[in-house]
Amino acid sequence: MKKLINDPNLVITEMLDGFVAAHSSSVKRVKNTTVVARKNAPVSGKVGIVSGGGSGHEPAHAGYVGEGMLDAAVSGEVFTSPTPDQVFEAIKAVDSGKGVLLVIKNYTGDVMNFEMAAELAEAEGIQVDQVVVNDDVAVEDSSFTTGRRGVAGTVFVHKLAGAMAETGASLEEVKQTAEKVVQHVRTMGVALSPCIMPSSGEESFELGDKEIEMGIGIHGEPGIEKKPLVFADEITSEMVERILPELELNENDEVAVMVNGMGATPEMELYIVNRKVHELLVEKSVTVSHTFVGEYMTSLEMAGCSITVLKVDDQLKELLDAPSQAPAFRI
Amino acid sequence: MKKLINDPNLVITEMLDGFVAAHSSSVKRVKNTTVVARKNAPVSGKVGIVSGGGSGHEPAHAGYVGEGMLDAAVSGEVFTSPTPDQVFEAIKAVDSGKGVLLVIKNYTGDVMNFEMAAELAEAEGIQVDQVVVNDDVAVEDSSFTTGRRGVAGTVFVHKLAGAMAETGASLEEVKQTAEKVVQHVRTMGVALSPCIMPSSGEESFELGDKEIEMGIGIHGEPGIEKKPLVFADEITSEMVERILPELELNENDEVAVMVNGMGATPEMELYIVNRKVHELLVEKSVTVSHTFVGEYMTSLEMAGCSITVLKVDDQLKELLDAPSQAPAFRI
Repeated sequence: MKKLINDPNLVITEMLDGFVAAHSSSVKRVKNTTVVARKNAPVSGKVGIVSGGGSGHEPAHAGYVGEGMLDAAVSGEVFTSPTPDQVFEAIKAVDSGKGVLLVIKNYTGDVMNFEMAAELAEAEGIQVDQVVVNDDVAVEDSSFTTGRRGVAGTVFVHKLAGAMAETGASLEEVKQTAEKVVQHVRTMGVALSPCIMPSSGEESFELGDKEIEMGIGIHGEPGIEKKPLVFADEITSEMVERILPELELNENDEVAVMVNGMGATPEMELYIVNRKVHELLVEKSVTVSHTFVGEYMTSLEMAGCSITVLKVDDQLKELLDAPSQAPAFRI
Repeated sequence: MKKLINDPNLVITEMLDGFVAAHSSSVKRVKNTTVVARKNAPVSGKVGIVSGGGSGHEPAHAGYVGEGMLDAAVSGEVFTSPTPDQVFEAIKAVDSGKGVLLVIKNYTGDVMNFEMAAELAEAEGIQVDQVVVNDDVAVEDSSFTTGRRGVAGTVFVHKLAGAMAETGASLEEVKQTAEKVVQHVRTMGVALSPCIMPSSGEESFELGDKEIEMGIGIHGEPGIEKKPLVFADEITSEMVERILPELELNENDEVAVMVNGMGATPEMELYIVNRKVHELLVEKSVTVSHTFVGEYMTSLEMAGCSITVLKVDDQLKELLDAPSQAPAFRI
């Protein structure tokens, strides 16, 4: 294992220290927790939005804390859900009296722990609602999930629910926006290499020298199949062809695209993938309104990428264009 | 070699196609070139700023094209300077009559080719000046350089010269700002793994299983020494201790910090490094005004990072805070 770390047991707290040091003008650490919140939280008159999950997906989730996106993010250990008490701390830190929306990626541990936190908060009189993101079209169930997994599409939920909350919308309205995004966003991923767990130094899974894993999850859990590495255009086509039927797109529909690096993939390759994604969409007379290429939802140093397509309408486009001051998603 | 590419000979042109497709509202490709320019170039009444270099450093350099930063970026083949005629095309594309500043990283090939392009442009009556960035404190000469290499500090030159140019400043004033940044910016890098050239599929250099290369360049060219991997704090301290004496910092001086990932390093690790950088600066009573953590000047999928420190005054801080619409550096 080669990592720029100190004690493997301290990677989360040291990462959060470094994160808050870098962005101290806009975020704070909630004392004695792994919660990063907006410096001015709770924001008066605004629904609070809390997300989070296991660490190792940076810039998710703390990178999305800021005006226009999340109010707080909770970090668990690497690839491990945060505990209910940590999520509860985040809820308390951001509730201005207008209620709090939890954005949960669909993993069994996350859903259970966030729901327990919601119960704790409701017992203290805080209004809490939730949305579960399940954008991954690769598999129906997985080692860590009942139903589809929540992956990079979650970033669009953060952005659009976040923008809606800034308008002063009610908890119900913010939730409706988040649900609308969940209904219209689909993702598929591919891995070219595993990642390495800081705690054990072990590779998360095995791949042959010329092998890729289609439909990989963001914790290295299995996808659809291992197969030989082929040209980028062929891989991209297979991924897009699995995503598009799910969205029931018609000619002249509009979409936003995210080509997300899993951690170790050069940006050069992500743009080569994006070129083909655009070509395929143009062929189908689908218009791309927004494109995001970069690292948004990673798996430590896994090589590979995911492609996310969000079907947009005028409301969603407007919310995408709204300002965001989150360190990892500035608009 | 595992890469998401098609024909290795087409990686640059396909990457640029994908880049322009993603950012078509703000950039354009200058026809039949590897030049990416602002869509509205040349910008009337403004000095043009052109940078570029070998590919493989993404998001450098095209990611820095946009309002508030560069007017155009020229891409060479991987780790290879762009040819004079390509640089010349960039100069012509951005000259509004107010002159063009070339920002060159100090590599022998780049300096030679950009200077030849300047001569071609001057012969056509375009006023051109240049600044050579040499921020790398690791080695005095290298396989590709006479004098110190230009590395991640170049991004600060883009940002600050770019912001100055937006004020309507003259070519001389924009050059003075760029020179001021060059004088006050220093960088050092470390590699944990090599990168892989798309053309050959070969690793750029060799490192043992528990070995790192201190003072690495951004093309895998040798640094100061190979040594055993130790804790992140120790590596960070060694890098910072080599940088700081160069800046002759006094108590209460202010600096901007960039912790730059080389390509495959998880953001988690970059923030762990940033934590220690801040700790070391606080110990010396130096104030950090701005911090940037992420991938700014990469070497394909090399693992490792560089640390850049820029000594700032009120003018440079104001220029850092100025808006930027460049895809890879939004403020």
